[in-house]
Amino acid sequence: MSDLQSLPEKTVERLSEYRRTLLRCQKQGITHIFSHVLAGIHGLTAVQVRRDLMLIGFSSDTKKGYDVSVLADFISDILDAPQPMNIGVIGMGHLGQAITKYFNSKGLNLRIVAAFDVDAAKVGHTIDEIPCYAMEEFEQRVAELDINIVILSCPTRVAGEALIPIVNAGIKGVLNFTSQPLNFPLGIVVENYDITTLLEKVAYFVKEQERTDI
Amino acid sequence: MSDLQSLPEKTVERLSEYRRTLLRCQKQGITHIFSHVLAGIHGLTAVQVRRDLMLIGFSSDTKKGYDVSVLADFISDILDAPQPMNIGVIGMGHLGQAITKYFNSKGLNLRIVAAFDVDAAKVGHTIDEIPCYAMEEFEQRVAELDINIVILSCPTRVAGEALIPIVNAGIKGVLNFTSQPLNFPLGIVVENYDITTLLEKVAYFVKEQERTDI
Repeated sequence: MSDLQSLPEKTVERLSEYRRTLLRCQKQGITHIFSHVLAGIHGLTAVQVRRDLMLIGFSSDTKKGYDVSVLADFISDILDAPQPMNIGVIGMGHLGQAITKYFNSKGLNLRIVAAFDVDAAKVGHTIDEIPCYAMEEFEQRVAELDINIVILSCPTRVAGEALIPIVNAGIKGVLNFTSQPLNFPLGIVVENYDITTLLEKVAYFVKEQERTDI
Repeated sequence: MSDLQSLPEKTVERLSEYRRTLLRCQKQGITHIFSHVLAGIHGLTAVQVRRDLMLIGFSSDTKKGYDVSVLADFISDILDAPQPMNIGVIGMGHLGQAITKYFNSKGLNLRIVAAFDVDAAKVGHTIDEIPCYAMEEFEQRVAELDINIVILSCPTRVAGEALIPIVNAGIKGVLNFTSQPLNFPLGIVVENYDITTLLEKVAYFVKEQERTDI
């Protein structure tokens, strides 16, 4: 594998989405799925689905469509690390709790194993079965629990304070939900996903739709 | 304006982010900002920033950089509808509450004005100053409150049940945070943002980074 290029971001996103649909199919006892059906579920063309699967080297040539289990496993081999990755959540407010509850119920290859907060009412307690530690313990707990990735769901005004602890602890990936864009040194993967941006984008295209409808 | 094409999605996202940074500058009393400074904050090149602003027809030629207030207003004219848009939240669990609290504290052109839930303990009450209604009242309340956009933050397993009410109520835009991709009829703007996908993407690139480091 090590001679392969990394996949484009959008392809990775779609593969993650396909897999989730395939896992739902498995649960329902569905064994095969056509590319145009998988495409339809995700609002894509069959050509796009086939192109994505070609890019990861998956070929299937049955009249029944793709074998659901085989394709799900194939995508998992591409997307997942050999060992489950451990995740820490910085900021255990509503958003942090929503994410934690959502994730750990899903049996993914990713596990939230610890939360960090500055709120004395939360520190030392377990929230949704996840221990909550003080930010001062961050570096130590990351090492103990072998945490690779953090989710930043603290208030925006304190997001910057997490930057140095994250770097010092050797974190490899950050999913930043605050409004503060954070620039980490090269070698740390960062995705900034501000919910405001997502909503402003929807609002813009709604406005444009109305403009062009007139 | 009506002869202009809609902007590319990524440009809209970046404009939303630039504006947020500009508004923060204003609060700090900063009156001017260079393109390379704005770029640096967002992890972009100055060329990218200048290209985005050229695309919306903004030109600035001072030695002090862009005028923060003028540029913020210019972007607002592009992104925002003339009237604030009203938003409803379907599913007032942790995620719905996190989003509501976050948004309505920000003085945006977007306002969450109502929540909808099936939980009898929430219906009829006010959560973070937002009235929470039963899903049965959806169509009526959307009309009364002039809601254009909904945020779908309910559990994934019931996401599909919201589809027909959303269409029937004449909603124009949907920001879907569930794991269920939803295909709406043409004319409804949908953004599917599954948090699982975002995190799986970070995990994939962390894995790839480690692979290529070896």
